[in-house]
Amino acid sequence: MLSHNTISFIKALHLKKKRLEHGLFLAEGDKLVKEMLASSFIVKQIYALPDWLRENSKLLNRDIETNGASQAELERVSTLVTAPSVMAVVEIPEVSIEPEELLEGYTLVLDGIRDPGNLGTMIRTADWFGIHRIIASDDCAEHWSPKVVQASMGSLTRVRIASVPLRTLFKDIAEISKQKNIDAPAVYGTFLEGNNIYEEAFAPSGFIVIGNESNGIRKESVQYIDRKISVPSFVVEGKSRPESLNAAVATALVLGELRRQQR
Amino acid sequence: MLSHNTISFIKALHLKKKRLEHGLFLAEGDKLVKEMLASSFIVKQIYALPDWLRENSKLLNRDIETNGASQAELERVSTLVTAPSVMAVVEIPEVSIEPEELLEGYTLVLDGIRDPGNLGTMIRTADWFGIHRIIASDDCAEHWSPKVVQASMGSLTRVRIASVPLRTLFKDIAEISKQKNIDAPAVYGTFLEGNNIYEEAFAPSGFIVIGNESNGIRKESVQYIDRKISVPSFVVEGKSRPESLNAAVATALVLGELRRQQR
Repeated sequence: MLSHNTISFIKALHLKKKRLEHGLFLAEGDKLVKEMLASSFIVKQIYALPDWLRENSKLLNRDIETNGASQAELERVSTLVTAPSVMAVVEIPEVSIEPEELLEGYTLVLDGIRDPGNLGTMIRTADWFGIHRIIASDDCAEHWSPKVVQASMGSLTRVRIASVPLRTLFKDIAEISKQKNIDAPAVYGTFLEGNNIYEEAFAPSGFIVIGNESNGIRKESVQYIDRKISVPSFVVEGKSRPESLNAAVATALVLGELRRQQR
Repeated sequence: MLSHNTISFIKALHLKKKRLEHGLFLAEGDKLVKEMLASSFIVKQIYALPDWLRENSKLLNRDIETNGASQAELERVSTLVTAPSVMAVVEIPEVSIEPEELLEGYTLVLDGIRDPGNLGTMIRTADWFGIHRIIASDDCAEHWSPKVVQASMGSLTRVRIASVPLRTLFKDIAEISKQKNIDAPAVYGTFLEGNNIYEEAFAPSGFIVIGNESNGIRKESVQYIDRKISVPSFVVEGKSRPESLNAAVATALVLGELRRQQR
């Protein structure tokens, strides 16, 4: 049985403020908890149905505090509509991305992504396409929130995300490129009026900047973009079209085309 | 001011049963309501802030019952976290897709898509890529639910969706193709172990079948698939990968590649 204090503690981790205060986040559900246990992330506590604990005892080492809980208790402390069989309290890892690293390969840059579901889906998609670094502007959704963790499906264990103002990011890149006497990597940004991605020859390394769901890439960030790109719609005569694509879908289509060209 | 009865009526439309009983659904927010008003859909009622009604009086004809409402009232009847400035009660249109139509162009087929956000995003993406017919198995999320309407961003006014058991669909297609003495259109389905979409030469017309978020295309449907396809991940040495892509993202990548080839 979970104590009143334990219940309050887990529920506190639903809130950003408390997550950052404790340096802990929640992973919910069998699949996600197993991904956390198999990763380098530090799982501090497990709350699970007795059956789950019995079946998975081999996955749990003695540094992890394990607690049996009833279905009703899990339902009470979970953020999910359907109670999971297991929840884990996991340490938020320290993530640092050195400017030097950013000169190699591709980095996804998110400019004000607010929807946690979109953010999680973007993390999962970046992981699928072998992009393991994300720079998120400080006004993006917090990426340890339960909804992001859920939608990212374990990809947070492989993709490093740093929250950095984009001004600082691109200033650092310009400086280090100058120091090394190399061209700064290409910066692509999605705009409704950008060049057709299928006609763009992507550089071997660079940045893909994705803007906010409603407003796109913000004015102050536009100056950093070298090449405006766009996913073209398919025009059918006599039919009007949607104004835009979902931001996570647009990200996927850009990353997919980038990797198709690099295969 | 909204009467108690009106409030109950709008809130009833949050529920599938009541939507189908009344043949009505809700569109929430300025953008979506304007898309409904500009379409052939029949808007029955508008509930809006007095400011919205003043600014948009030209959009409203006398067949539409308009009602001023306060912020607090809209918050009470809305399904959104932030109260919209306007909500519309709209007639669910009768949609029929004739088997004969299905012989031309592409049709998206959804086999058990349960998440309303995914379903809405799929509808919006299909619309972007000029695919205006969707066949949904009867256990898909109901596509007039507020979350689907929200995520589809008005694409429901351009994309026709019919709920048909896939068995019936493919039986009809086989029959009509035989009658007309033509080959039945190609049926593509996404599987984790399918052929690389970037190496597949898509037929000029056919079906793209997308399976359930967790379980993929169900066993009974596999028999109808001619060609198993898959979005390849991008392999980075020494890194493990996610198990799968989000279903709406996978749909977007398949439709994007199909249309890239057809440009």
